Amino acid sequence: MQYTIHAKTHNKWDSSLPPIFSISDGDIITVETKEASDGQISPSSTDRELYNLDFDRIHPLTGPIEIRGAEPGDVLEIEFIDFKDKGWGWTAVIPGFGFLSDEQYTAPIDLKGPSLKIWNVKNNNAYAKFGEIEVKIPTYPFPGVIGVALPQRGKLSTIPPRENGGNMDIKHLTKGSKLYLPVFINGGLLSIGDTHLAQGDGEVCGTAIEAPLEVTMKIRLIKNIGLTQPIFYSNKVKDMEFNEYIAYPGIDSNLWVASKKAIKGIISILSKYMAPVEAYMLASVAVNLRVSQVVDVPNWIVTAYLPLDIFENDTVKNEIKEITRVVSP
Amino acid sequence: MQYTIHAKTHNKWDSSLPPIFSISDGDIITVETKEASDGQISPSSTDRELYNLDFDRIHPLTGPIEIRGAEPGDVLEIEFIDFKDKGWGWTAVIPGFGFLSDEQYTAPIDLKGPSLKIWNVKNNNAYAKFGEIEVKIPTYPFPGVIGVALPQRGKLSTIPPRENGGNMDIKHLTKGSKLYLPVFINGGLLSIGDTHLAQGDGEVCGTAIEAPLEVTMKIRLIKNIGLTQPIFYSNKVKDMEFNEYIAYPGIDSNLWVASKKAIKGIISILSKYMAPVEAYMLASVAVNLRVSQVVDVPNWIVTAYLPLDIFENDTVKNEIKEITRVVSP
Repeated sequence: MQYTIHAKTHNKWDSSLPPIFSISDGDIITVETKEASDGQISPSSTDRELYNLDFDRIHPLTGPIEIRGAEPGDVLEIEFIDFKDKGWGWTAVIPGFGFLSDEQYTAPIDLKGPSLKIWNVKNNNAYAKFGEIEVKIPTYPFPGVIGVALPQRGKLSTIPPRENGGNMDIKHLTKGSKLYLPVFINGGLLSIGDTHLAQGDGEVCGTAIEAPLEVTMKIRLIKNIGLTQPIFYSNKVKDMEFNEYIAYPGIDSNLWVASKKAIKGIISILSKYMAPVEAYMLASVAVNLRVSQVVDVPNWIVTAYLPLDIFENDTVKNEIKEITRVVSP
Repeated sequence: MQYTIHAKTHNKWDSSLPPIFSISDGDIITVETKEASDGQISPSSTDRELYNLDFDRIHPLTGPIEIRGAEPGDVLEIEFIDFKDKGWGWTAVIPGFGFLSDEQYTAPIDLKGPSLKIWNVKNNNAYAKFGEIEVKIPTYPFPGVIGVALPQRGKLSTIPPRENGGNMDIKHLTKGSKLYLPVFINGGLLSIGDTHLAQGDGEVCGTAIEAPLEVTMKIRLIKNIGLTQPIFYSNKVKDMEFNEYIAYPGIDSNLWVASKKAIKGIISILSKYMAPVEAYMLASVAVNLRVSQVVDVPNWIVTAYLPLDIFENDTVKNEIKEITRVVSP
């Protein structure tokens, strides 16, 4: 059967919540999601709205949705069939939040925020201006949060991802992908939200292109498998890559520090063209952190890949491509 | 001018070494490289050769090559123009070496080695058998080690990558890429070796598809830039991705542990079809570790991506693709 499920939301993992809808193995559902701020940010918002954000409202998740017959030890197969956007999205740096929030970053590079960017979305592309530069990012929508009820009782935060999935922020969970989640509670109790239009591997500033969506999924119930954590299939990894990149290797004996060095290298380059806090946001939605090697004792490498295809202005693109024009003397 | 430089090698970073060749800004050079074992492993080798490996001979680097006029503060642009293989390559698990070498890995999964795999290379594809499965990996050759002399005196190990480049093991440094390295010593003193035919992001078992090559590069000298570490341009990132992947998210509050969980998840799946130590090697040459997110406190995610295109047998490919058939009950 095919159903539409409206955005009746909760924002804690809580296995005692009554389902808002019940479906069966093989059903296709179109689920309305709210964006991560639960309506506190709109297409007309400015930085000001970020000062007054009520964090208790973050991560409204549509659900829980009961899958009839699901029992602990079973697996849900969630096939992502389609995503519909609403023509806009947002990205923000929120003080105290994000990968570089505790950095003593050399002045005059200020990454603290608050800073908000609103994106216009047309024909599967998101458009915004960073400094004077027009940026265009192809959208591959996905849920930042998708998960089932946890075995524990009580109200648990939606911020950390866990064995139930949850706030994984894995950008390849887009159309064509199939996500497998273990069932811990009778009925499974699936919830989905925090939907994104685009994101870099890393989501470094803590937000992607956040957007309300309609998500169409086919849900299959697979009995008695004993999967212990999420796993997924994707056929969009290649499509989601860009044609040209500038890449900055972060070299360090600690992967966390290596990742920071890599992202700071890219932010440095972008900051020739925009405020550092904008560069931080652009890195969050478009730059990929890849683990180049973890074996060359004692210095590992995480490399940050900045796609050049996103710059509408060829002069800027070619200037960045000629690396020596944008690294500081 | 265009030159061929034969494989006269050294295997320590040592700024006092006399150059084996001198070139000028704009010259194109074709450099012969040895594979990482310096001839200790050949196409007819077996596991036995690994017991007797002389580690003092690892990483023979062709060089150093002097770039006339290069001074501290300058930058070398190294454009990778072409790579020629010799029809073979090798991958090995060497006891005590590699990302999982210190793991108390649950029996009966034994990843210790020694274990050697020889690859046949034809028309830019590498072929080998893992268990009963034929594997085919497209080759995108690159130097595991490429770097200039360090400012320090003395003989320094080639194992860790540093601000001079060196053993970066970044697989995107292939044909079409441009690598920028800072110059620390008059003449720059470029060396190259440890060449690879293919590698996953991570190089988890510590070896890629190791192979002797001929590497053609154009070297430009850019004066007075003040770059402090390597940075590169690549237009092959998309080409190097595969069409289909199974992906295993490693979820942990430590990126190192998250990476281990992710790779162990993939090795578990592959071990249904081959010895775990073979799965470890296959992961090293084909599986990509990507940093999915570093912001969802306190659980970060590194995801391991196993390409399905590498399996010549469609039955195996489809079985792995249907994830629930290969995860343990």
